[in-house]
Amino acid sequence: MSLSARVSTLCALSALALGLALPGGAQAQDEAAIVGAEKARDAALAANIALDYVTQLTTRFGPRPAGSASETAAAEWAAGYMRDHGFRNVRIQEFPLVGWERGQESAAIVGANPQPLVAAALGHSPATPEGGIEAEVVRFATLEAFQAVPDGSLAGKVAYVDAGQLVPMQTGAGYSPLSRIRSVGPGVAGRKGAVAFIMRSAGSDEHRMPHTGTTRYVDGVVPVPAFALSAPDADQLSRLVGYGAPVRVRLSSTARTYQTTSRNVIGDLPGRTRPDEIIVLGSHMDSWDLGTGAIDDGAGGAITLAAARVIADQGRTARTLRVILYGSEEVSQPVETGNGGGAYLRSLSPEDLANHVFTGESDFGADRVHTLQLPVGVQTGAFADAANRVLYPIGVLRSAQPEREGGVDIGPIVQAGVPVFGLKQDGLRYFDLHHTADDTLDKIDPEQLTQNVAAWAGLVSLVANSDVDFRAMAPATPAP
Amino acid sequence: MSLSARVSTLCALSALALGLALPGGAQAQDEAAIVGAEKARDAALAANIALDYVTQLTTRFGPRPAGSASETAAAEWAAGYMRDHGFRNVRIQEFPLVGWERGQESAAIVGANPQPLVAAALGHSPATPEGGIEAEVVRFATLEAFQAVPDGSLAGKVAYVDAGQLVPMQTGAGYSPLSRIRSVGPGVAGRKGAVAFIMRSAGSDEHRMPHTGTTRYVDGVVPVPAFALSAPDADQLSRLVGYGAPVRVRLSSTARTYQTTSRNVIGDLPGRTRPDEIIVLGSHMDSWDLGTGAIDDGAGGAITLAAARVIADQGRTARTLRVILYGSEEVSQPVETGNGGGAYLRSLSPEDLANHVFTGESDFGADRVHTLQLPVGVQTGAFADAANRVLYPIGVLRSAQPEREGGVDIGPIVQAGVPVFGLKQDGLRYFDLHHTADDTLDKIDPEQLTQNVAAWAGLVSLVANSDVDFRAMAPATPAP
Repeated sequence: MSLSARVSTLCALSALALGLALPGGAQAQDEAAIVGAEKARDAALAANIALDYVTQLTTRFGPRPAGSASETAAAEWAAGYMRDHGFRNVRIQEFPLVGWERGQESAAIVGANPQPLVAAALGHSPATPEGGIEAEVVRFATLEAFQAVPDGSLAGKVAYVDAGQLVPMQTGAGYSPLSRIRSVGPGVAGRKGAVAFIMRSAGSDEHRMPHTGTTRYVDGVVPVPAFALSAPDADQLSRLVGYGAPVRVRLSSTARTYQTTSRNVIGDLPGRTRPDEIIVLGSHMDSWDLGTGAIDDGAGGAITLAAARVIADQGRTARTLRVILYGSEEVSQPVETGNGGGAYLRSLSPEDLANHVFTGESDFGADRVHTLQLPVGVQTGAFADAANRVLYPIGVLRSAQPEREGGVDIGPIVQAGVPVFGLKQDGLRYFDLHHTADDTLDKIDPEQLTQNVAAWAGLVSLVANSDVDFRAMAPATPAP
Repeated sequence: MSLSARVSTLCALSALALGLALPGGAQAQDEAAIVGAEKARDAALAANIALDYVTQLTTRFGPRPAGSASETAAAEWAAGYMRDHGFRNVRIQEFPLVGWERGQESAAIVGANPQPLVAAALGHSPATPEGGIEAEVVRFATLEAFQAVPDGSLAGKVAYVDAGQLVPMQTGAGYSPLSRIRSVGPGVAGRKGAVAFIMRSAGSDEHRMPHTGTTRYVDGVVPVPAFALSAPDADQLSRLVGYGAPVRVRLSSTARTYQTTSRNVIGDLPGRTRPDEIIVLGSHMDSWDLGTGAIDDGAGGAITLAAARVIADQGRTARTLRVILYGSEEVSQPVETGNGGGAYLRSLSPEDLANHVFTGESDFGADRVHTLQLPVGVQTGAFADAANRVLYPIGVLRSAQPEREGGVDIGPIVQAGVPVFGLKQDGLRYFDLHHTADDTLDKIDPEQLTQNVAAWAGLVSLVANSDVDFRAMAPATPAP
């Protein structure tokens, strides 16, 4: 059954059954707020307005690396888009960061039978010396094996970690072990004496698409030039190494860092009765340089902007809706200050922060939402029952696990105590595309994008007209 | 049901039923030849030897452009592989051609919001002037619309033909209308006064993978620099043009042609009783430069070599089996003399040619064979019945249509009158990968590759031990 057919069936069921079947706890919620949320959800399903935003964003501006002219132009355009769509107090919040430009790069096997490799430098990787680095490859099948060799023992070599393909999971849990290799690999390579670091991409696809991504500084720099190979190239290099003869590679990069600024774009739909109470809907505007940032994270902006618009079309909410398109989520250097989430938190007075009652982030592509996680202390009870009533009909299950973290953008305000929800998306194909040239508009399924908007519209409408004080319901000390 | 399960089931059925159910016409064939062919087929299914050849070829040598050092090295290695596997009279047949090297290339949208495009120069496209070409794009939705504008009317512009995605078909028929655009587009562009030609790739995938391919000379050269865009880039450029403001692109290429040589690798498994009668099994060794030529056409060599080996393992055949790994299938310049098929034909005396009794070519990837087409005059009757008995159990249907052409490599000897068969492969995903960087080993499904070997082993064994004179059975004048 297609998603739309399933949604229709479930909507019909919900009208007949769920309204009657829900436990009495739901009655503790304002029935009008629930009905309003259902209307916002259904309006989102009918309207299909998110695709236009992400189409224009990715087509007009292409890749939007943090701090680039393209990110700046996109932010200015998005501010205009917000104004055109009824947002108030639209503003651009600038902050400094260390940007990174890829420049020219190449990788190749050299020697008797030379052949090119498709590779991409990792974010903030330094340039190679002019003419490139040519050296023998030493392959490791795990990060642990790489870490275990003596310091200095890889002098003059290229360290290569091929820990296999990313395991596709609906939760995206397969990413963590491989992104850890990307984070720490160049630092380990430096300690071992290697002249460069290469890794199999942290990805689940089998295309000639390297997955870039940021890596960790040691003493203020990425210690050695660092590259990700596409999966077929990693296969190829590992096979050649396995044939037994020494394998040499040549790596070249003109990457550079530079001082620049990024910016958050912020717009409000002011509340009617409790305008000081703010709900923040987050996503990020910047993208990696290889693709056009459609699923990461143009889609998130499209979902949150469209959800807020759909809710507003039903009439002003009690609380204020704030949509933030954050700058510099992907390349945050310095780590402490170079990202949009931190810049937003620093812009808030303690009183402002205390008025942030609820937040969530859309930054996991455009595939459908399957699970709702509510803030600590609210994951069961009357509000959760009401949310279930609104979201179950579009295929979203309530989890008994509370949300604790959000994502990179809202992380700073979540750490500062703002209650966070998660509308968890299907990640089974996300890491086929993530941080590659293939992150383009055509990868967005409009039907699933619309289901995302409906889930956000339903939940956020409910929260925006709810009397629940989520801050008061959290345990005094957040769980670890 | 998996292919292997289906094959097993069908094999069991064939043993029980087909042997009894076939019309008496099959009895006109030598029963021993049929049983031998069935044994060769089943030995191929059990042996799974083709994958090793294409793995080594693509891993050791990577891309193998016609006339390159890589093609030469691969040919020498393949000759050794043939000798090691019992082929006799293994020889390398050299011939001159005009080679083509891609060099460095780039494409980008320029202007207010610049962004890179993923593009690849078409084969034999000339270099751009140093610094590249920068001009406004004029888009056409069909070749016909492009051809219809007045000569000279695109002076100073870049002509862009976006005729949509290749239609996936099991037969591959979707390729023809788009490869025609690739062939004639640069010539049309020159006549219209355009400074360059770009087109949506002739492909069915939605990845950032341009499909290269050769294009036609006019007066001894490709008239203007010519590029294929990946599908997402073609989408992007067409959307931007559709927004209405003029769109300018910058195209750069350092491609060059050069005089070189390519080579055919030829090996025989001599016949026992009629060694002068030769069956030619063809495929090509060269590949495009972007991928490693696994499906186009490392797989074809793997299939034909493995089939010949499996047949020989059953004992010497009556007729001689000749495997030819042709050079320069992809980039044939001059058209008349620059390809391996023509070079082979020119090496034959009229008597040699007259001894060529049967030929076929494997050059359509590694997906399964679904249809058998026999030469004109043989497509029905006792031999066809016998072939059906051998091939139906592995999922190959006999077609009432005769084969007439073969492919590029055997085309010259077929035109000269050698009877040709076709073991037609499933082309539904072939043009996702064809002529792209994504043509790599991982795209080969070992199970389907093995089914190909079984089909070739079964049919060729039958022919090699058959008394049928296919040359005598063809109509005096081949149908058009």
